[in-house]
Amino acid sequence: MEPGDAARLGPGRAARALPPRLLLLPLLPLLLGRGLRAAASASSGAAAEDSSAMEELATEKEAEESHRQDSVSLLTFILLLTLTILTIWLFKHRRVRFLHETGLAMIYGLIVGVILRYGTPASSGHDKSLSCTQEDRAFSTLLVNVSGKFFEYTLKGEISPGKINSVEQNDMLRKVTFDPEVFFNILLPPIIFHAGYSLKKRHFFRNLGSILAYAFLGTAVSCFIIGNLMYGVARLMRTVGQLSDKFYYTDCLFFGAIISATDPVTVLAIFNELHADVDLYALLFGESVLNDAVAIVLSSSIVAYQPAGLNTHAFDAAAFFKSVGIFLGIFSGSFTMGAVTGVVTALVTKFTKLHCFPLLETALFFLMSWSTFLLAEACGFTGVVAVLFCGITQAHYTYNNLSVESRSRTKQLFEVLHFLAENFIFSYMGLALFTFQKHVFSPVFIIGAFVAIFLGRAAHIYPLSFFLNLGRRHKIGWNFQHMMMFSGLRGAMAFALAIRDTASYARQMMFTTTLLIVFFTVWIIGGGTTPMLSWLNIRVGVDPDQDPPPNNDSFQVLQGDGPDSARGNRTKQESAWLFRLWYSFDHNYLKPILTHSGPPLTTTLPAWCGLLARCLTSPQVYDNQEPLREEDSDFILTEGELTLTYGDSTVTANGSSGSHTASTSLEGSRRTKSSSEEVLDRALGIGDQPVSSRGTRLVFPLEDNA
Amino acid sequence: MEPGDAARLGPGRAARALPPRLLLLPLLPLLLGRGLRAAASASSGAAAEDSSAMEELATEKEAEESHRQDSVSLLTFILLLTLTILTIWLFKHRRVRFLHETGLAMIYGLIVGVILRYGTPASSGHDKSLSCTQEDRAFSTLLVNVSGKFFEYTLKGEISPGKINSVEQNDMLRKVTFDPEVFFNILLPPIIFHAGYSLKKRHFFRNLGSILAYAFLGTAVSCFIIGNLMYGVARLMRTVGQLSDKFYYTDCLFFGAIISATDPVTVLAIFNELHADVDLYALLFGESVLNDAVAIVLSSSIVAYQPAGLNTHAFDAAAFFKSVGIFLGIFSGSFTMGAVTGVVTALVTKFTKLHCFPLLETALFFLMSWSTFLLAEACGFTGVVAVLFCGITQAHYTYNNLSVESRSRTKQLFEVLHFLAENFIFSYMGLALFTFQKHVFSPVFIIGAFVAIFLGRAAHIYPLSFFLNLGRRHKIGWNFQHMMMFSGLRGAMAFALAIRDTASYARQMMFTTTLLIVFFTVWIIGGGTTPMLSWLNIRVGVDPDQDPPPNNDSFQVLQGDGPDSARGNRTKQESAWLFRLWYSFDHNYLKPILTHSGPPLTTTLPAWCGLLARCLTSPQVYDNQEPLREEDSDFILTEGELTLTYGDSTVTANGSSGSHTASTSLEGSRRTKSSSEEVLDRALGIGDQPVSSRGTRLVFPLEDNA
Repeated sequence: MEPGDAARLGPGRAARALPPRLLLLPLLPLLLGRGLRAAASASSGAAAEDSSAMEELATEKEAEESHRQDSVSLLTFILLLTLTILTIWLFKHRRVRFLHETGLAMIYGLIVGVILRYGTPASSGHDKSLSCTQEDRAFSTLLVNVSGKFFEYTLKGEISPGKINSVEQNDMLRKVTFDPEVFFNILLPPIIFHAGYSLKKRHFFRNLGSILAYAFLGTAVSCFIIGNLMYGVARLMRTVGQLSDKFYYTDCLFFGAIISATDPVTVLAIFNELHADVDLYALLFGESVLNDAVAIVLSSSIVAYQPAGLNTHAFDAAAFFKSVGIFLGIFSGSFTMGAVTGVVTALVTKFTKLHCFPLLETALFFLMSWSTFLLAEACGFTGVVAVLFCGITQAHYTYNNLSVESRSRTKQLFEVLHFLAENFIFSYMGLALFTFQKHVFSPVFIIGAFVAIFLGRAAHIYPLSFFLNLGRRHKIGWNFQHMMMFSGLRGAMAFALAIRDTASYARQMMFTTTLLIVFFTVWIIGGGTTPMLSWLNIRVGVDPDQDPPPNNDSFQVLQGDGPDSARGNRTKQESAWLFRLWYSFDHNYLKPILTHSGPPLTTTLPAWCGLLARCLTSPQVYDNQEPLREEDSDFILTEGELTLTYGDSTVTANGSSGSHTASTSLEGSRRTKSSSEEVLDRALGIGDQPVSSRGTRLVFPLEDNA
Repeated sequence: MEPGDAARLGPGRAARALPPRLLLLPLLPLLLGRGLRAAASASSGAAAEDSSAMEELATEKEAEESHRQDSVSLLTFILLLTLTILTIWLFKHRRVRFLHETGLAMIYGLIVGVILRYGTPASSGHDKSLSCTQEDRAFSTLLVNVSGKFFEYTLKGEISPGKINSVEQNDMLRKVTFDPEVFFNILLPPIIFHAGYSLKKRHFFRNLGSILAYAFLGTAVSCFIIGNLMYGVARLMRTVGQLSDKFYYTDCLFFGAIISATDPVTVLAIFNELHADVDLYALLFGESVLNDAVAIVLSSSIVAYQPAGLNTHAFDAAAFFKSVGIFLGIFSGSFTMGAVTGVVTALVTKFTKLHCFPLLETALFFLMSWSTFLLAEACGFTGVVAVLFCGITQAHYTYNNLSVESRSRTKQLFEVLHFLAENFIFSYMGLALFTFQKHVFSPVFIIGAFVAIFLGRAAHIYPLSFFLNLGRRHKIGWNFQHMMMFSGLRGAMAFALAIRDTASYARQMMFTTTLLIVFFTVWIIGGGTTPMLSWLNIRVGVDPDQDPPPNNDSFQVLQGDGPDSARGNRTKQESAWLFRLWYSFDHNYLKPILTHSGPPLTTTLPAWCGLLARCLTSPQVYDNQEPLREEDSDFILTEGELTLTYGDSTVTANGSSGSHTASTSLEGSRRTKSSSEEVLDRALGIGDQPVSSRGTRLVFPLEDNA
């Protein structure tokens, strides 16, 4: 047993080898609050019978002091957020657009970080610790016998031996340093869920192919290019003697993955405010939402790439395919989890009359959405990714079943959570630049990274857009491409991925670089968006529910615009077939099963399913009296061999969150494929004559296979 | 160093000596989720360079397994809540009233508890732990050297030496056992804040005197009587040999304090549904809200009562007054914290135009309300109590400044949080009956406790009501008294106080007894409320905005109805004076300063404050065009030497949360004291003629002192 002075370390350093969940202390104990006071005195009451009360009193005082500091540090963040809210109100009030709330949160964070760093005493001596030697392996729990009394300790993490004596003892700095897993498990889920839940579905689905291409292929391309460029930079640094520790190729690829998660939050906020082009909005927003998921899974797949033996430089085909398998497995598993809970929620809200009690309905919605996260985690998938797809499913199906009050309640609930979490992360970023204790500033690496993300973004946007334009009827213009290139901001996801593991030298350098990239992109690009929009001649002031100029681009998605178009190994026909299959399946079966809209299942299912169809079809579908409302309608018809059967359903197309309802009349009649575009345009178009027409049915050859 | 098999204990047992914040692991790590998977593999990537990877792999697997179990156990609770929501919908749908959602949550919790207890394998061997001996005192951090590598451990708590070897190893049971502080720091605050925020203020303030008397005096009486009766029971038990461990007089008083916190949630739900008498509702609700605060502070004061020396039986005047001092200090401190943050929020929302941005406004409101809790904790007061008064202040002032959207947003946000937290606690209670591992069932004690709470409630309600009726013009009838007697349910607060410290034998017995009392009262009384209402002839179907039958009882509160009336050491005059002072001060100064309503400060403040008055008075007050809305108006005029100056203000009296607005016309003129009752009745009465009359001013002799 040898007493050391190493005490508790900042999580960044301790996060090395493991149990992230055991590390979790920081956030909640803070939320915590409620008195140590009473508890400590309560325990002292019980302990009065024991001797050595003095000793306990000292420990109590220490704990109480620590609890107080926790409260103070959380108060610091609340103060920061409050300041941000007030300042951003002032900016909005005065129509200042060059600084977004996230940028502002970072600035305030920076200021407080500087104060904490240089304004508080550097050391506090009252934290004592003890080191004792253990020959065996590390256990998760330790029982310590102190002069006859037993104390229980839990494992917090490993500490590099070399760093034990170089620990800085600033209490306040340590207090404001959260466990990195907090970001992943508490702050990101509401942000990501909100993104999925608030997707403007019509425009999203219309551009789905392009969005998928940008998100999957684009992120992979970007990751690979950035990774390789950074490997070059790392070799250069080693040559000139700037690199003091190991930096493997997988580290570079990992950096490529985390930095490929774009987050154009400031750009989108300005788009929203100025009502910029909706298709560009959909492309940017959809890409950023999905590429977060891709980046998470990609980064963990890259980490899982461990060639046999210790030669991490050589290419190992087995390990590579294992990584690809992990990527596909985690991604599809998480997707399934999210979709399944979304579907279950839709079924529950459809078949109960819960909508009479908005409070119950909202609570159920919240619980089910949260359970997605836990379910995915319990099954070993990625909760954040599952939550994203759950959000999309909830918006697509469940949202239609909710009562009007619950719709606004759920939207508002997640909007507030998202707002708070996002601004918290950004102000934490500002703070971390000064309070994080293991920054590795390497100018060469940072400059290299800026060049690499620029080139990576360029190699991602321009070639992909070129290939996509081959298939799109409504081309992605140069100005859109430049705007997408410009909007490659990095934000909360890149930060959360980077801070997650800051144990090694390479990871610390990546973290510092990521932080600087986030700062730069949020401030500079956020400020430059409005000038850039006018410079690129992108139209603003567009009604989000309106279609782009009359060039029949509603069908762009069907013109070979799938994720495969870039690879060109499938024909347009196949791609269109895939989407038609999905949309007809969704419209004929999923929507009628999961919501109160669409054609009755009795007309779409084969005759022998009659009983089942009658059970699953909601009475409202048959009921002419009650008009069917299908918000955010997004069914897309295709130029193909399909026949549309119009019964008497009301189609209510609504692009934005229920604020602006555009209804169309479908005067039930049969139309042939040649007129389907026209029908769709009217179905998705504007016009305020809600008409009761029911039983829209898509009939085409594929139906029998479904 | 001696290897032991004691491993991690259930929090109940470990909660003895200390750091509750260090104990916090359970909840958030659960919320947590996000993969150990990726994190573990990420860390393994970094660790590839190290040797002994096998060892780490094993620990990783263990951590991953543990994380998975966390997710599963939290999923269990979500499933429970979902089931509760669905069943309660069914009940509401079929208008079943004999079982409230909280009762149902307990039943489901019980069932799952039984399954977990008897359906899962009793032991899992893979948790290893190690005990090492330490001669010194316990440190909060431990550094352990395992074959050259250093691991950091944090203190979890002390373990009684006798219990080290009797630890049950059921993983699942341990996983579903939360840290007791979670209840106090995460689940109670939203419940309590919601209670304060949703007070029906008009009826609350009209009965304020009686409510304060019931809450303060009543709770003290009840605590004292229950404590003494239980001390008798304990002595009896010792005589017959049923008591196997120590049980002091302070333990009995402590039990009296925790069990005196009533929570008539099921009764109030039925009152709400049936629109039962509003004054009775206000009395019950107000009492239960305030007596929670009283019970918390009382219990910690009792614990702080430690006579000098070790003779805990003798009465020690110094210790007693110290306890009283602590009670007053904590209570007033917490009250001040809550009121101050509420006032700050009101000022911020008044002087900014945040109401144009409901999202920012709601976020600010949430942050400020949360900061109350942290502020109180940081200053050593009680966060939960502060949050209650913050809620009341927010409802009284800030609410009037919010935009219409923010009003519903904030109400709904806290309604959902309250609903989830409350049902979570109740389902946890059901679960705890079987999963909590240290129950002490003592039939004598339990029967004694039931008798004691019955007698305590009776000694609290009937005598107090008698004294209050001496002063009240609108008497509290026998049927109301019986109903209040009957509504003495115990709920979340009693449970949270009881589970907080279950280290000693006495506390374990109290916990078990409290649990059974909660079960019994929630089920039996919840089921019996509807019959009891009709049996006692309490009128139902009352419009909450309507006054009771026309017997001029609007002034009941002023008839010596203060907290002092029971003691009778002040004259009616004094008591009325106190309330008049407050109401005129509130109406003339606080409301105009903090909200957009009330008379302009330029008319109420002395002339030399002119500049200040002009700064603080919002333009809306002068602006006749924009009608002033003062929701939940509650100013109460008195029979006294006061003069009312009517300018041209619009008074909008609204009893319920903005759903039903009753406006009155005050045709500006001077009235003498004799007609003030009539004016008030009209001000609070119903009638839908909103009239623009401004500048109501209360002028009476006291004004110069204010």
